[in-house]
Amino acid sequence: MAVFQEVVSLSTRGAGTHEITREVGRMVAESGVQAGTVTVFCQHTSCSLVIMENADPTARRDLERWMDRLVPENDPDFHHTLEGPDDMPSHIKMALTRTSEVVPITAGRMALGTWQGLFLWEHRAAPHTRRLIVTVQGE
Amino acid sequence: MAVFQEVVSLSTRGAGTHEITREVGRMVAESGVQAGTVTVFCQHTSCSLVIMENADPTARRDLERWMDRLVPENDPDFHHTLEGPDDMPSHIKMALTRTSEVVPITAGRMALGTWQGLFLWEHRAAPHTRRLIVTVQGE
Amino acid sequence: MAVFQEVVSLSTRGAGTHEITREVGRMVAESGVQAGTVTVFCQHTSCSLVIMENADPTARRDLERWMDRLVPENDPDFHHTLEGPDDMPSHIKMALTRTSEVVPITAGRMALGTWQGLFLWEHRAAPHTRRLIVTVQGE
Repeated sequence: MAVFQEVVSLSTRGAGTHEITREVGRMVAESGVQAGTVTVFCQHTSCSLVIMENADPTARRDLERWMDRLVPENDPDFHHTLEGPDDMPSHIKMALTRTSEVVPITAGRMALGTWQGLFLWEHRAAPHTRRLIVTVQGE
Repeated sequence: MAVFQEVVSLSTRGAGTHEITREVGRMVAESGVQAGTVTVFCQHTSCSLVIMENADPTARRDLERWMDRLVPENDPDFHHTLEGPDDMPSHIKMALTRTSEVVPITAGRMALGTWQGLFLWEHRAAPHTRRLIVTVQGE
Repeated sequence: MAVFQEVVSLSTRGAGTHEITREVGRMVAESGVQAGTVTVFCQHTSCSLVIMENADPTARRDLERWMDRLVPENDPDFHHTLEGPDDMPSHIKMALTRTSEVVPITAGRMALGTWQGLFLWEHRAAPHTRRLIVTVQGE
């Protein structure tokens, strides 16, 4: 077994899900690994990862809107508000989703299901530069 | 270190948690790996994985009912409704739980705690055939 | 690639987040692994793991309070109540966060972001002794 690691920098355009399936798939292909796993890790606490339906974009929009309703801004119980009203909701949405996502590699490719895409979910309102660490382990 | 991989097909009987501890445990045993990890990956976006109390079944039923209340069907804000009222709630419940679960292997067995079981959580109302990819990595 | 595994016992002081970044970082350093992953696994169903902002403690307190409001005790729909009013909410909070967390190792250290810390989140009201399995895989 071998390890391949790469840092990915991404610019988000504000809140929402940004598909990263292709970028991660390219790194898996370049590693030459035929069987194993790829671990995607998000180095931030106000954005997160999720594997979601990637065919109909309304599914993602419904998910985003539902989450915005579950964790509204300007909650009177929030004290961590220095960075703005979207700061604390971002941390909560991150905690409810995923910081790392592990996807199997089979026959040299990510073994995602037919309708699965891998997404970086930006929870802050403003565009941000985000860093992911992609680690391929296998043979 | 070595990699062992297997695809598991499961038939669910509609919404609810279905224990898969035994199936995954059997694959770990067959791999012969003594120390490492097993990664279970769910290839769908309307069912998910969770590790949960496996002694008292009322704990799982309480969890399922609580989640049904958190994400009710027929939300007027949902637009992704073509496949029925349980479609969008399924995606949201999946995003709130887990697509991959990584369990350590110690002394040739999954190192689950005393009360832990591994479950596939079907979120759709109708029975479905579901595919999991089980990847054992270790020595 | 090699595997290193260690069991960590922790005493929690009741509900709340307890930082474990330093303990896990020490094990990564001792393993000598330069590139790979560390998988932290929580062997319980009434506490969980989360990677969270570790600079301003009010962020964690806001997250904890928000979760307490989302999953209140004494829900009339709960049947799994034998161990007390905090039992069932603990399982739900666990299911909404993480049982395993996978962090990349780069240049011999956990590749956490600047503001990220790794936390054990005790959901039970009383202090508990908790077991984590830390598995380092890499080269």
